[in-house]
Amino acid sequence: MSDTTESRFERGYRVLGEIDGDGGHKVVESLADIAPDFARYLIEFPFGDIYSRPHLDLRAREIATIAALTALGNASPQLKVHIQAGLNVGLNRDEIVEIIMQMAVYAGFPAALNGLFAAKEVFAAAQPVGN
Amino acid sequence: MSDTTESRFERGYRVLGEIDGDGGHKVVESLADIAPDFARYLIEFPFGDIYSRPHLDLRAREIATIAALTALGNASPQLKVHIQAGLNVGLNRDEIVEIIMQMAVYAGFPAALNGLFAAKEVFAAAQPVGN
Amino acid sequence: MSDTTESRFERGYRVLGEIDGDGGHKVVESLADIAPDFARYLIEFPFGDIYSRPHLDLRAREIATIAALTALGNASPQLKVHIQAGLNVGLNRDEIVEIIMQMAVYAGFPAALNGLFAAKEVFAAAQPVGN
Amino acid sequence: MSDTTESRFERGYRVLGEIDGDGGHKVVESLADIAPDFARYLIEFPFGDIYSRPHLDLRAREIATIAALTALGNASPQLKVHIQAGLNVGLNRDEIVEIIMQMAVYAGFPAALNGLFAAKEVFAAAQPVGN
Amino acid sequence: MSDTTESRFERGYRVLGEIDGDGGHKVVESLADIAPDFARYLIEFPFGDIYSRPHLDLRAREIATIAALTALGNASPQLKVHIQAGLNVGLNRDEIVEIIMQMAVYAGFPAALNGLFAAKEVFAAAQPVGN
Amino acid sequence: MSDTTESRFERGYRVLGEIDGDGGHKVVESLADIAPDFARYLIEFPFGDIYSRPHLDLRAREIATIAALTALGNASPQLKVHIQAGLNVGLNRDEIVEIIMQMAVYAGFPAALNGLFAAKEVFAAAQPVGN
Repeated sequence: MSDTTESRFERGYRVLGEIDGDGGHKVVESLADIAPDFARYLIEFPFGDIYSRPHLDLRAREIATIAALTALGNASPQLKVHIQAGLNVGLNRDEIVEIIMQMAVYAGFPAALNGLFAAKEVFAAAQPVGN
Repeated sequence: MSDTTESRFERGYRVLGEIDGDGGHKVVESLADIAPDFARYLIEFPFGDIYSRPHLDLRAREIATIAALTALGNASPQLKVHIQAGLNVGLNRDEIVEIIMQMAVYAGFPAALNGLFAAKEVFAAAQPVGN
Repeated sequence: MSDTTESRFERGYRVLGEIDGDGGHKVVESLADIAPDFARYLIEFPFGDIYSRPHLDLRAREIATIAALTALGNASPQLKVHIQAGLNVGLNRDEIVEIIMQMAVYAGFPAALNGLFAAKEVFAAAQPVGN
Repeated sequence: MSDTTESRFERGYRVLGEIDGDGGHKVVESLADIAPDFARYLIEFPFGDIYSRPHLDLRAREIATIAALTALGNASPQLKVHIQAGLNVGLNRDEIVEIIMQMAVYAGFPAALNGLFAAKEVFAAAQPVGN
Repeated sequence: MSDTTESRFERGYRVLGEIDGDGGHKVVESLADIAPDFARYLIEFPFGDIYSRPHLDLRAREIATIAALTALGNASPQLKVHIQAGLNVGLNRDEIVEIIMQMAVYAGFPAALNGLFAAKEVFAAAQPVGN
Repeated sequence: MSDTTESRFERGYRVLGEIDGDGGHKVVESLADIAPDFARYLIEFPFGDIYSRPHLDLRAREIATIAALTALGNASPQLKVHIQAGLNVGLNRDEIVEIIMQMAVYAGFPAALNGLFAAKEVFAAAQPVGN
């Protein structure tokens, strides 16, 4: 899956684009003046190392991330980026809503509610597709 | 997907068995003397309502649950039950390890490490399959 | 306490109104276009099942909920709804402030501070009663 | 409520005894060789300042604490001390079980389950009263 | 280190000023109409008792606080106050950025990202110093 | 600070040894049969990238880590490793106790208590030095 002549950074930047599109690149840019090295780590470790691994496709990886960020409940901007990412890698709106609803069981109803409101915002900003 | 003549409890009990096998039923039994109504709610809401919904299969649902419980990091017994549940509904060991490793990105390395040690324990207790 | 001819949904909707008044119904409405089934679950399980149980009155239940949401610190909208709910079911402002202050012991001063600022906002929006 | 000639430490030590009985004093003793000043703060701030305030009785305060510690889910020893404390200040077993069950709504089923198992352990260790 | 003729409140108020400057006093004022006693506790316990203890200087104490509030991720206003406090007691911007970046390891990348964005905001509001 | 001819893995393995001594290497070994790649990431990112950066010495970094792990309260094994690491890089017992006590302010008394008990255990297992 990974091209051995491609560096971790190059692979990460490519995978970040596949997953998050503009959202990911904006996060990287927003770090330029405060912590440019952290932007590099963000590309290299999560995307160059983890998301580009075999054994689990991007669809499954976004299910895991949307679930975790909804359950943790303290990273609303990142949850929104990954709800969009879920749409980008092939999850449909119903599936994303199901993942978030399920978190009521593991992290309580407020966490699920706040996740659903985040999804509502992301879906509204996305092109009006028929789901 | 749901038989309308089947009650929420019946549907939940059946789905709990499909997912957690003995693990789920043991949890229910362990509540009998302290909070029998809670055992009923546990069957009815998570399993009768949520896990038996359409739009997301049990494999995807267990990806979400393993991710969330690893990230939350404060429910080790339930994480082990759901790692076993993941195996029961068709995730293989490599996939479960990938989900848990990915949580290092969202909840930190200690959460991922403790998740991996939980998986190690569950895998060791399971029949020695070739993965 | 529960009328056996009343469905879980009917009982939950009634109890939700008693506790949260308009706040609860607004939450339910805001789910209509994103996750209408979740609105139903929210009425049925927390309010139809849990809050309508005997053994603990609504005043005690709101003490528990205000305490938990203050301590968790990641569900500010729901905390505000339940501070209002506390007033609705008979807690006075001093009692609500005491519950939140006590959370400094269990979840730290920032959690308590943020809870107090939430209370300040809810009290300011409520009719100017003499406490 | 507070005797002005009584110091914060004296008041706290007295209130700690009323609430936690031996459990509280054991915690204080266990700090003697590692952080004796922290034992003093533990008596003075939570018990000398907070628990001895007017406006909320000890029964209501233990409802809040049991709820918060169940929801936070990462302080099992302290939750057990306060389940016993709840019994000491007049909550009965059914009421404690209700508080913990309710936390499924706000912090998820695993948090509530682990709280119920903590209660089971505390109730089993207590004298066999008829509830 | 502590003047025995100085009360806990006086010592705390002085130390709060050294650490947080105006930020701390504004928090205290904002509590005046909702929970004036809590303002007093906030001065007495964290600042009069803890921050004024020997064995650890204010620079080390702010490293600990910035780390913890970044990792917890649910107390953004307090994190900003303590990033400013870190600057006040002698941490430079690079050091603060390092502390926050390190939290990616223990609490995940979203917690570190949100901490960095908080730092960016605090640094932008501070006088343009050469770091 | 970093030798450019040294790989991230080599640098990380060296820094891990400086910080955690045997404790770190044991964690790496314990991952060999479940997630060997994660052992590599654990060496490369936290230790090869983060802990080996300039601007903050290892003493300051361990203050941050002990604070964060105490506050999070859900990673007891890792907290113990880093209390030992704190001793290894030059923090004395009094300083470690101060850091942990301070967390009562930010994450509550139970988190601080459990941190102190972890420290007690690590100190007891270490050679009996005069602090």
